[in-house]
Amino acid sequence: MVLAVAAAVLCAYIAPAAAGSGIPEVKAYLNGIDAHSILAPSTLFVKIFGSIFGVAAGFVVGKEGPMVHTGACIANLLGQGGSRKYRLTWRWLRYFKNDRDRRDLITCGAAAGVAAAFRAPVGGVLFALEEAASWWRSALLWRTFFTTAVVAVVLRSFIEFCRSGRCGLFGQGGLIMFDVNSAPAAYSTRDLLAVIFLGVIGGILGSLYNYMVDKVLRTYSIINERGPLFKVLLVISISFLTSCCSYGLPWILQCIPCPAHSEEECPTIGRSGSYKNFQCPPNHYNDLASLFLTTNDDAIRSLFSSSSEKEFQISTLLVFFVAIYFLGIVTYGIAIPSGLFIPVILAGASYGRLVGTFLDPLSGLDAGLFALLGAASFLGGTMRMTVSLCVILLELTNNLLMLPLVMLVLLISKTVADSFNKGVYDQIVEMKGLPYMEAHAEPYMRNLVAGDAVSGPLITFSGVEKVGNILCALKITRHNGFPVINEPPFSEAPELCGLVLRSHLLVLLKGKKFTKQRIMTGPEIVRSFKAHEFAKPGSGKGLKLEDLDIKDDEMEMFVDLHPITNMSPYTVLESTSLAKAAVLFRGLGLRHLCVVPKTPGRPPIVGILTRHDFMPEHVLGLYPHLHSHK
Amino acid sequence: MVLAVAAAVLCAYIAPAAAGSGIPEVKAYLNGIDAHSILAPSTLFVKIFGSIFGVAAGFVVGKEGPMVHTGACIANLLGQGGSRKYRLTWRWLRYFKNDRDRRDLITCGAAAGVAAAFRAPVGGVLFALEEAASWWRSALLWRTFFTTAVVAVVLRSFIEFCRSGRCGLFGQGGLIMFDVNSAPAAYSTRDLLAVIFLGVIGGILGSLYNYMVDKVLRTYSIINERGPLFKVLLVISISFLTSCCSYGLPWILQCIPCPAHSEEECPTIGRSGSYKNFQCPPNHYNDLASLFLTTNDDAIRSLFSSSSEKEFQISTLLVFFVAIYFLGIVTYGIAIPSGLFIPVILAGASYGRLVGTFLDPLSGLDAGLFALLGAASFLGGTMRMTVSLCVILLELTNNLLMLPLVMLVLLISKTVADSFNKGVYDQIVEMKGLPYMEAHAEPYMRNLVAGDAVSGPLITFSGVEKVGNILCALKITRHNGFPVINEPPFSEAPELCGLVLRSHLLVLLKGKKFTKQRIMTGPEIVRSFKAHEFAKPGSGKGLKLEDLDIKDDEMEMFVDLHPITNMSPYTVLESTSLAKAAVLFRGLGLRHLCVVPKTPGRPPIVGILTRHDFMPEHVLGLYPHLHSHK
Repeated sequence: MVLAVAAAVLCAYIAPAAAGSGIPEVKAYLNGIDAHSILAPSTLFVKIFGSIFGVAAGFVVGKEGPMVHTGACIANLLGQGGSRKYRLTWRWLRYFKNDRDRRDLITCGAAAGVAAAFRAPVGGVLFALEEAASWWRSALLWRTFFTTAVVAVVLRSFIEFCRSGRCGLFGQGGLIMFDVNSAPAAYSTRDLLAVIFLGVIGGILGSLYNYMVDKVLRTYSIINERGPLFKVLLVISISFLTSCCSYGLPWILQCIPCPAHSEEECPTIGRSGSYKNFQCPPNHYNDLASLFLTTNDDAIRSLFSSSSEKEFQISTLLVFFVAIYFLGIVTYGIAIPSGLFIPVILAGASYGRLVGTFLDPLSGLDAGLFALLGAASFLGGTMRMTVSLCVILLELTNNLLMLPLVMLVLLISKTVADSFNKGVYDQIVEMKGLPYMEAHAEPYMRNLVAGDAVSGPLITFSGVEKVGNILCALKITRHNGFPVINEPPFSEAPELCGLVLRSHLLVLLKGKKFTKQRIMTGPEIVRSFKAHEFAKPGSGKGLKLEDLDIKDDEMEMFVDLHPITNMSPYTVLESTSLAKAAVLFRGLGLRHLCVVPKTPGRPPIVGILTRHDFMPEHVLGLYPHLHSHK
Repeated sequence: MVLAVAAAVLCAYIAPAAAGSGIPEVKAYLNGIDAHSILAPSTLFVKIFGSIFGVAAGFVVGKEGPMVHTGACIANLLGQGGSRKYRLTWRWLRYFKNDRDRRDLITCGAAAGVAAAFRAPVGGVLFALEEAASWWRSALLWRTFFTTAVVAVVLRSFIEFCRSGRCGLFGQGGLIMFDVNSAPAAYSTRDLLAVIFLGVIGGILGSLYNYMVDKVLRTYSIINERGPLFKVLLVISISFLTSCCSYGLPWILQCIPCPAHSEEECPTIGRSGSYKNFQCPPNHYNDLASLFLTTNDDAIRSLFSSSSEKEFQISTLLVFFVAIYFLGIVTYGIAIPSGLFIPVILAGASYGRLVGTFLDPLSGLDAGLFALLGAASFLGGTMRMTVSLCVILLELTNNLLMLPLVMLVLLISKTVADSFNKGVYDQIVEMKGLPYMEAHAEPYMRNLVAGDAVSGPLITFSGVEKVGNILCALKITRHNGFPVINEPPFSEAPELCGLVLRSHLLVLLKGKKFTKQRIMTGPEIVRSFKAHEFAKPGSGKGLKLEDLDIKDDEMEMFVDLHPITNMSPYTVLESTSLAKAAVLFRGLGLRHLCVVPKTPGRPPIVGILTRHDFMPEHVLGLYPHLHSHK
């Protein structure tokens, strides 16, 4: 409980953003959502130590999600050249000052996190591709691949260094964490039917897991909103509940005599080992206690081990499965960094082993392999990934011959679960209210045109604009992009010149290159700025409006916006279908999309579409009658 | 030579498109190039039988590339609902009548080809992702995954069925073709240096391979252009050369006494086996003959086997490496279906084994594992893939512990080779003159705007157009898309209504829904057509202009184009940077991009950009001075 409180205090008081898995946040960031604090240095600090404390406290949580988030945070810190707030800056790390490069780097960080957590370098690449990233290009592929190759080499040398046991439990199992190669992977048609059954039930249980996680999260958010103290209290009560299960449930089960010829000591003497004596007489062990009172990794290894090595009672597996399933659900959402992979794998493995033990007389497939397939079915049912989970499981267990079965189970459970609800990470993103852009447009958008979604007053600047007008516009709105319109005498008729960003305007105003007359100063004024001044600043560290010090007489002067205007913004005609505009917006990863008029004789721009204008809440708020078409 | 002639005759006389690997063609198709005959049923037929004859004739060619092409052809045949020409049609397969779905299906087909060829289902998915597909979306990921899962299950049941040896050599090695698990995968820092050296040299040799393949292809194309007979003669001479090498070179090497305790018979009695007697005295074998006079798969298996199982003389490896390296180069490009994977793996494995045998006194790594790494370095050096090759090699050899080293070698050889030239498939696409759109825009495009690239006369239609005008436009141009412009009285001023496709115009004209007056008939006229009439036809099977039978009095009548006009085509302003237009075009997979004017008072459309307008040849042809900026 001390460890639990430590994790909770860190999380509640220092960085609330560090609570939970972190994968949904990374996913949202990579989709283009620049939410402050998701990848801040304080989040990184709390994520690392909170995760250590949380896992050590014995919660049913994993370290995988937090490691992905940690990897992304480190990548972000490197990408913005260190942290100015904490006085850690590196000059040579200034090459990532734009959205795309920074996204690439963070994708690599997420891949490295998975690669390190599961010791699965290829799985890490595929996870980053399938789950994390919203845009993909071939350069990114070999970059993530390079990152995880480095992770693999570093991991391997650490494991080599720790082989003699001088690093405690680290490195157990070598590069392959849960080797299941000892059991023969032969199966017949009858086993195939059993596996399909396993996949269907696994899919249903997985989607039920998602449903309940969602409900529990909504309940917790009410408690958590009341203040940090309530967060800590919630963590304490869940910690108490977990302890009750771990130390209480084993009492209700029978003791088992030690196996005659076991390689391991029985009963276990030290802290690690899978034959816990618990309340049993000498030479006996309690198999439920052996699952509860050990590390999660060891519990999974026990469940995956072949039936010849270890046998579990059916009652043990049933109690363990039910306990872990519900503990996993109630633990996610409390104020500690908590991964979802380990709870799901644990629950799935015990479910699979349970089915395998039941079917033992009928099936030739080993119960340990059933446990592996059960874990696959749960993972497919909750997270809805396919290739990446398949490769991660392959790299975890080193059993290539099971590949066809694992693929089958993943596909079945994903398909079954998809008919009920969304994947758990998508659900969490939605629940957090992050404006996530889906890859496809919603069907009702086909009935609207781009002009319909434009809302709010449009503020435009002239090519050479009065300083006062710019300051006023920056003050009264929170827009990040403003259209620039060329008017006579700079053009024959009003025409769209381009788009100017708030951050660039602030830099320009700070430089005070003003003129008394309305004249174009030409591109040489930007030469007085350094390129990095216009670079995208680190999270929340850019120039603020308050940093400007414009005098009253300067307010009446003019400034030429042409040098900092993006002269070729992407545009759509106002009559373009909103669905097509959404595809364009998402496909090219835009932040602003200009809507231009179709007929002449009107102002040269109708409005600007941003991410929020494509959100269902916004569109359906404007056109409530479309709800029925939804 | 009989088999070689059979393959060549099929290829030269029936389907010239079936020659070569097929992967570049599939890659080009998936990039959006609708070249006729790439995926035609005749190509499929020749690809299957030509590949069988070619491999059986003993050429240094693989079956992997042709299997990818075969998979894509089958997918295409299914996607267009069978072949009308050969009277094989399926009504229920009509759901793929648009570009995107058909592309998805063909991607799945390509993935299935790799999965079947290497028995590597996950490798197949990744190959399709990394090398074949130009667009990627998450639905495609699980679809290819599903396809390869089916392939894995089917393959496994065939292998199970053939276990007793009733299918000849099929199924040898089970699901894992070249198991290298017998050698221990322990390595030290010194081995790491050796591996880096291997990777660098492998990258150089790989790029040299590409360079020479390119030169040879250009030479052969001069010969092949002279007619099918010359193609066959070329095949015969290469076949003769291959035979000379296979039967001639082993004579120059020494015989080796049979190993004392071998599991295999020595010397080999039947046709398969790795201890060929050749010219040697009894109880001796010729190891070079054992590599040449066996299947490619068996040769690779021998090279990958651990040094304790089998030893090769350094002279044998050297001769075999040089022979295979050059035979592989001169064989690609002759008129037979010929994959590149097997020649590259063979050359790479013998190179790696050679290095491994040299370094044996210094390195703790087995020579068989060096052969694996050598194959990886050659594959990385020629094909420049990363994750997919890594997973394919993993699934081929079932050695997860070598993963970090394989990743390292692939990255090193790819990086080294990338500094010399392009990947072999990209090179072939370029040499064939296919208008392949790269994912990134060329640097010189940043200095141009979209309006600069528009060329040629623009032909537009009015919203309600005279039939004669349409027919005339269809006759004199080969454009596939025409802008439709609304004019008074249908709108106040001329405005862009949308884009109409040639194929849709032909269907509409064929339906003869004409009116005497210039009036809008409204959307109900399309109801008299069936949806599938407007569907994208199979390759080269759509309506032709000659199929229309328009009478003279009908020429003066009018037809309303609004119902078949795409009302929201993607547009760019004429002042948009050409680089950005290229990104838009490629990113969304367009075929036509409308360029609209920026200033009012001009026609509402400036021109249409198509794939060809973005090709370097076209742009640099218009603006030759940009050559220097290139």
